[in-house]
Amino acid sequence: MEASALLKSRVRRPSYLKKLAKAEDLIHHFPNGTYIGWSGFTGVGYPKRVPTILAEHVEKNNLQGKTTNKYTLEVRRRRLTLSVLGKLKYNLFVGASSGAETENRWAKNNMIERRAPHQVGKEIAKGINNGNINFFDKHLSMFPVDLMYGFYTKHKENNRLDVAIVEASAITEDGGITPGASVGASPEIIQMADKIIIEVNTAAPSFEGLHDITMTDLPPRRKPYLIMAPEDRIGTPHIPLDPERVVAIVESDYPDQTLPNAPEDDTSRAIARNLIEFLKHEVDHGRLPQNLLPLQSGIGNIANAVVGGLASGGANFKKLKVWTEVLQDSFLDLFDSGNLDFATATSIRFSPDGFHRFYENWDQYAPKLLLRSQQVSNSPEIIRRLGVIGMNTPVEVDIYAHANSTCVMGSRMLNGLGGSADFLRSAKYSIMHTPSTRPSKTDPHGISCIVPMCTHVDQTEHDLDMIVTEQGFADVRGMSPRERAREIIDKCAHPEYRPILLDYFEKAEFECLRKGWGHEPHLLWNAFDMHKHLNEHGTMKLPTWG
Amino acid sequence: MEASALLKSRVRRPSYLKKLAKAEDLIHHFPNGTYIGWSGFTGVGYPKRVPTILAEHVEKNNLQGKTTNKYTLEVRRRRLTLSVLGKLKYNLFVGASSGAETENRWAKNNMIERRAPHQVGKEIAKGINNGNINFFDKHLSMFPVDLMYGFYTKHKENNRLDVAIVEASAITEDGGITPGASVGASPEIIQMADKIIIEVNTAAPSFEGLHDITMTDLPPRRKPYLIMAPEDRIGTPHIPLDPERVVAIVESDYPDQTLPNAPEDDTSRAIARNLIEFLKHEVDHGRLPQNLLPLQSGIGNIANAVVGGLASGGANFKKLKVWTEVLQDSFLDLFDSGNLDFATATSIRFSPDGFHRFYENWDQYAPKLLLRSQQVSNSPEIIRRLGVIGMNTPVEVDIYAHANSTCVMGSRMLNGLGGSADFLRSAKYSIMHTPSTRPSKTDPHGISCIVPMCTHVDQTEHDLDMIVTEQGFADVRGMSPRERAREIIDKCAHPEYRPILLDYFEKAEFECLRKGWGHEPHLLWNAFDMHKHLNEHGTMKLPTWG
Repeated sequence: MEASALLKSRVRRPSYLKKLAKAEDLIHHFPNGTYIGWSGFTGVGYPKRVPTILAEHVEKNNLQGKTTNKYTLEVRRRRLTLSVLGKLKYNLFVGASSGAETENRWAKNNMIERRAPHQVGKEIAKGINNGNINFFDKHLSMFPVDLMYGFYTKHKENNRLDVAIVEASAITEDGGITPGASVGASPEIIQMADKIIIEVNTAAPSFEGLHDITMTDLPPRRKPYLIMAPEDRIGTPHIPLDPERVVAIVESDYPDQTLPNAPEDDTSRAIARNLIEFLKHEVDHGRLPQNLLPLQSGIGNIANAVVGGLASGGANFKKLKVWTEVLQDSFLDLFDSGNLDFATATSIRFSPDGFHRFYENWDQYAPKLLLRSQQVSNSPEIIRRLGVIGMNTPVEVDIYAHANSTCVMGSRMLNGLGGSADFLRSAKYSIMHTPSTRPSKTDPHGISCIVPMCTHVDQTEHDLDMIVTEQGFADVRGMSPRERAREIIDKCAHPEYRPILLDYFEKAEFECLRKGWGHEPHLLWNAFDMHKHLNEHGTMKLPTWG
Repeated sequence: MEASALLKSRVRRPSYLKKLAKAEDLIHHFPNGTYIGWSGFTGVGYPKRVPTILAEHVEKNNLQGKTTNKYTLEVRRRRLTLSVLGKLKYNLFVGASSGAETENRWAKNNMIERRAPHQVGKEIAKGINNGNINFFDKHLSMFPVDLMYGFYTKHKENNRLDVAIVEASAITEDGGITPGASVGASPEIIQMADKIIIEVNTAAPSFEGLHDITMTDLPPRRKPYLIMAPEDRIGTPHIPLDPERVVAIVESDYPDQTLPNAPEDDTSRAIARNLIEFLKHEVDHGRLPQNLLPLQSGIGNIANAVVGGLASGGANFKKLKVWTEVLQDSFLDLFDSGNLDFATATSIRFSPDGFHRFYENWDQYAPKLLLRSQQVSNSPEIIRRLGVIGMNTPVEVDIYAHANSTCVMGSRMLNGLGGSADFLRSAKYSIMHTPSTRPSKTDPHGISCIVPMCTHVDQTEHDLDMIVTEQGFADVRGMSPRERAREIIDKCAHPEYRPILLDYFEKAEFECLRKGWGHEPHLLWNAFDMHKHLNEHGTMKLPTWG
């Protein structure tokens, strides 16, 4: 096969060009049950050619796993194994989510037997929640090292992944990989894989110089991460690897399929205002330097509004730095405002417009940006050392400051834990921001995001410092659970839910103090009555307790 | 006041001897509402004289806070403030628990307005659960740094503690403190206190040489802990301090009041056997070195049995090292067996016999021992780097591998979170060991420690790798929640509860898969029915679900 001039300009290791292959010719590397690792994080830097060809192959040859129906449910109830029903089904590990057009298609074809640690996609969520996909979500900082420990391949004799498919924006003389817009778990996936397939993406520019890559040693030989500031480099600019394990190079010619960012609205702007007010308060009281400490911000419209608020003149914080997991378009505005000195993450997930703007102004943005592996970007070690200000959005928060980040009604998986607990567990300021309510099908305030007891707990009361809604903020540092409850109900709950929640709390407090159980009072048999009411009546507005 | 010869031999800073005082003369430092820090961790190294004299003062002068009665409950229900009812009540911060004879007495006198982050004592637990004490439990690694951030003194103008009372076993020429059998949060309490009172304990030997002390810098100036092995020293042998802040030295002449350790029994020995079998399995499969990795072990009879099992010939693990929070007597046996090379912790809580044995053989044990601050012993940074094997005992574990470490029936505080989440969150192996059942008042197996849903979550499903009971072990690494449930019920639940739990799970699975909510199936309105049955009928043996 002859390499294009563009491809040759990206691949500086000549011997690799001899391994140039078409995706169609690589199907034999993927028998049923293969353990596969993909590059990719939050929908950027994922492999596109080989996964697409594999999906086509399955569709053309009717090799899909059977989809769930009454029969398989019955099979499952009786504890028979379902694996015999699959035809070409894989164990798939990706740092975080890959592109919907690849992974969703695999899920639709029921090609995924097992998946970790995070996903975004309608079909994948469906497969997880109907029992087709064995999904587990794991702290994103911990997933790569548990993979290296062999925890996820413990049923295999050699404890390794079979194949890694990794996207590169360039290849060095040594045969090392320059990733694209994300690093994710690629270093560890490459370390653990017997075979490596590299997709060289020529649709986007080379990202050379933008990465700081560290590989993972195992205890007792693991070393400290000697990072003392977001701009510190401790690694190599590319992912080093053993060239003999590279079985093929594939040219890939279409860009990351990202979507526009979620727009701000009045609610998210009000949340951002409350949050910025709190940060100012901390600066005024000498607990934060004038330029704050490194910021972590999640994904979504609240995160956008917060970053937008920092970019606008009103907040008046200068020389900011960012230590986070993913950068969205709003960070480009923050750079442009002149208030942001440096940002580091494991992924830049810009919108198509954002990527265009980034490429056009590469020389301006690139010197202030650094991409690291998710084990480093989400490292509790570094997050705690730097004193990061961590901000995330939950499914629900309860009156004692536990938060649910993953499972609606305690059962239905949304996207996975992601890095929420990496940051909230170790940050100096652990902040959950959420609208006080969300609409149900029949009531624009049918769902209160402040509840008596979370139906699933991902962040504990021992972790959270601050809850922020559009109503206000509850600063629960140093408070006992009963103090926290009054503060959160008073400052964060929607006015329509305040009396309902206060009624729960006061009844619980009275009952539990009477019994000498009053540290964290609950009416255990009624704790989910608001959720039950939602399920039965379409709103959490419960008329009375118990 | 004239110093005794013994005291003079311990205090090598002459100017301190001029500050020698009787505890009785220091009461004026403690007006109502004082923010106080004590040294001490798990009932060793706590101050004894000044707290006792303050309790006597309160008792003699009827300065106790009012105890809870129907009237105060009513006051609380109406959200009036209770502080006016207190007469001499303090905000008390101790690294972890101090001695029962001091702190319990304070609690009995209702002298504690606020307390963090961990306690052991009947009267304190009572005060917390009847609403007299505003208690919050915090990760022990995080408590000292949050204290340094000013989070717990945010209502005070200078953000500082008023008085620290710290026990010393000796004082250096520089005026630094050599702690006794624990370090705990003393470095940070000393850094944060305006006044320091030192109790020099002459009843026990000087512990000089046994400590490695690091003080806490705040971001952006915080540095890595350059510890690569349990024996690494990175600090000073004593706690440095500003001598001008020392307001008094008090001689203290009675030893730490510890109790005998909880004895092993058949159940704890069976749990230990299962756990050791698992460790051997990991060594056999190349996932652990022959001498394992540094061990962390909690407190209690299971921990004793595990350490005892490692000391006996059967386990055959040599050259072990320990990185833990507290050392119990069983570690002396492990040293004596020749299998333990080194142990480090923040506290040695031996029994009176254990301390005797330790002092008698000081030259043999001391070179293999090191005490550090709790911020270091429980540091997620170091625990993850070293690949610690973390083992703890919960209140209850649920079928999806969440664990409750703190609140019985979701409400009643036992002792506090302690370091459980510091270790389980960051360890290489995160192991919960528990008997499968505990007795209720009327049924020797009335309480199942495996439940459908934890009534309080301190450790999440994203953290735990292994559940061990006397029935067997469930290795849940890499498993989806539904796989975990079957494994935990099958391997860990008591035979009498297996069908009850399986029935719950299968009903939940059927219902939730049908609705497309099946990632982590729950019957949310029935999830606590076993607890309800216990409350109403004295046993969790629920006849039928829903």
